[in-house]
Amino acid sequence: MPFTVDSYAVNSATSDLEPYKLERRDLCDDDILIDIMYSGICHTDQHFARDKWGNAVYPMVPGHEIVGLVSAVGKNVKQHSVGDFVAVGCIVDSCRKCTHCLNNEEMFCTEGNTQAYNSPEPRFPGHSTAGGYSEAIVVPEHFVLKVPKSLQTPTLLPGVAPILCAGVTMYCPLKEFEVSKGQKIGIIGLGGLGLMGVRLAVAMGAEVMVISRNHNKDSDAKAMGAKGVISSSSKEELALHDSTFDLLIDTIPTDHDINIYFPLLKPHKTLAIVGHVGRFEKNIIDLSALILGNRHIAGSFIGGIEISQEVLNFCGEHEIVADHTIIPMEQANEAWKVISDSAKRYIIDISAFSNRSKSN
Amino acid sequence: MPFTVDSYAVNSATSDLEPYKLERRDLCDDDILIDIMYSGICHTDQHFARDKWGNAVYPMVPGHEIVGLVSAVGKNVKQHSVGDFVAVGCIVDSCRKCTHCLNNEEMFCTEGNTQAYNSPEPRFPGHSTAGGYSEAIVVPEHFVLKVPKSLQTPTLLPGVAPILCAGVTMYCPLKEFEVSKGQKIGIIGLGGLGLMGVRLAVAMGAEVMVISRNHNKDSDAKAMGAKGVISSSSKEELALHDSTFDLLIDTIPTDHDINIYFPLLKPHKTLAIVGHVGRFEKNIIDLSALILGNRHIAGSFIGGIEISQEVLNFCGEHEIVADHTIIPMEQANEAWKVISDSAKRYIIDISAFSNRSKSN
Repeated sequence: MPFTVDSYAVNSATSDLEPYKLERRDLCDDDILIDIMYSGICHTDQHFARDKWGNAVYPMVPGHEIVGLVSAVGKNVKQHSVGDFVAVGCIVDSCRKCTHCLNNEEMFCTEGNTQAYNSPEPRFPGHSTAGGYSEAIVVPEHFVLKVPKSLQTPTLLPGVAPILCAGVTMYCPLKEFEVSKGQKIGIIGLGGLGLMGVRLAVAMGAEVMVISRNHNKDSDAKAMGAKGVISSSSKEELALHDSTFDLLIDTIPTDHDINIYFPLLKPHKTLAIVGHVGRFEKNIIDLSALILGNRHIAGSFIGGIEISQEVLNFCGEHEIVADHTIIPMEQANEAWKVISDSAKRYIIDISAFSNRSKSN
Repeated sequence: MPFTVDSYAVNSATSDLEPYKLERRDLCDDDILIDIMYSGICHTDQHFARDKWGNAVYPMVPGHEIVGLVSAVGKNVKQHSVGDFVAVGCIVDSCRKCTHCLNNEEMFCTEGNTQAYNSPEPRFPGHSTAGGYSEAIVVPEHFVLKVPKSLQTPTLLPGVAPILCAGVTMYCPLKEFEVSKGQKIGIIGLGGLGLMGVRLAVAMGAEVMVISRNHNKDSDAKAMGAKGVISSSSKEELALHDSTFDLLIDTIPTDHDINIYFPLLKPHKTLAIVGHVGRFEKNIIDLSALILGNRHIAGSFIGGIEISQEVLNFCGEHEIVADHTIIPMEQANEAWKVISDSAKRYIIDISAFSNRSKSN
């Protein structure tokens, strides 16, 4: 039988998040019920809620960076047990039969994957999926990930949430372009994605430079292990690093001139773009800088379930979590307002929200 | 002592090619004197001659696809002997000490490589280099390539010339992106570059499709071994090949919309651009098609000396040369007018020109 949980939802492209009684589906035989402990606030939550991509369905319960405890399992579930620390990211269902699903890239599912929120919910007809800004969620076991033991401490656990989206998004290009010890890697933008990128690339043994509009985040960058910061507003600073980078990852979620980064790359090396979905209206790409330097641009979009577990395991080995600030659910609206300038992630403490709502 | 050879040169951005008495430098100890037999006409010759890139020096003797016989060698030359069939491509000198030169990518020489024509000539101060539209050329042995035995026949030899530029340009991305048997490769544009790309990719065992504005070159494409032609003007034809290509190589030398090609690529696969140097003024690249499909764009610029010899050897093994029409020097102006619509290369028979000039 469907059941009701407390959540926060937006009711229109201009509304704040507000308390909402959310209906969850009953468990199928391969489903897992998760009591949510922490939900990361991702910049994307705002883009969806504000209907930036024109596909918003309201009321919308955001959140695709979810950490919690298994509280019930369907009768065919084998991979997880009640009491396990688990995590859920952007993808909560897919056909699991197409070439892309069989290739562990469920995000490219030819039938269209089901996202953690704002997707039609194949297992609950007439409903959209609803995300982690809620007490509990029901997810098929294939899409539920294990939180490594080393990250299950009260200090680290909240910071695990952003690994599920930002971590995976940054790890995929670092892996695809074979980052290794001693390479020089540039992380463009030190926001929610960038901070995970710095920690991951440093753990891989790379020399990491942050490329930012100014030097306001120098101390943040260095605290995360970056060697330094290059101001992208300074031609002189950029020129000092000409043709020296093995990989650049551009995390900036707004329109900007990417041409200034190409000269930084060695031949055959890549500017991976993860931060922007849409057209760079201002941007006419100067192909001569690509051709005359054998340089590459690559898009990279989140990651599948297998690699998501790989990222969690990697973070477990290196005890990496996102730098974060824990907030109660009631402060999510405030956090949305400042997220784009923050070098820390905001993590909603759902257990506090949930306990309070239960005690009321 | 410098000496004079017959050549054809342009004297301004609007002039035709005209007979010109060209001064060549005396041989240094590592230099080779080559009696030119064939010189390919490359579309780039026109771009340089018409000063498209704003760096033209006149009189300009074009030609960077050169095949000939060694007629003299400097005293330290070890790799070539008088009477050898040799070839020269786009690069005729470089510092040979910088990272790029030591990495066999002389085209990225940090001191600037010396091109076959229209470059300052370090070994002949005050002169620009002059290319293959001439009786003879003097080139340092490092930049002189061996023509494989199997291509030294009267039928094949003229078609070797375009391997030096078009062949190398197409081979480099085919190699960089690891084309192998059974892969599906798209060659965009069936001009001077495209025809070499089709032959090379077919020889690598790939299934090759030509992507062209229309179906006018279907029989040419199939004669070269392509499986078929996709009209880029037809959305329906393009859609039939959605997400099926392992590599696309765009050879089109003019401004055009590259966004239409991205959906053809499988995830993690590349659109390599070799045909255009400059900005696509009309083109705002839709990064969502790259990000949401993990697709790549790569620039690729000719190739170094080592890989140029590798291409010649590969062509030797597979008896590949460019489909071509042989013309006398006097018809070069006519050939320039029709080159952009031709699925064959024009090769100037320099030995005819040279013999005639000597007998006059």
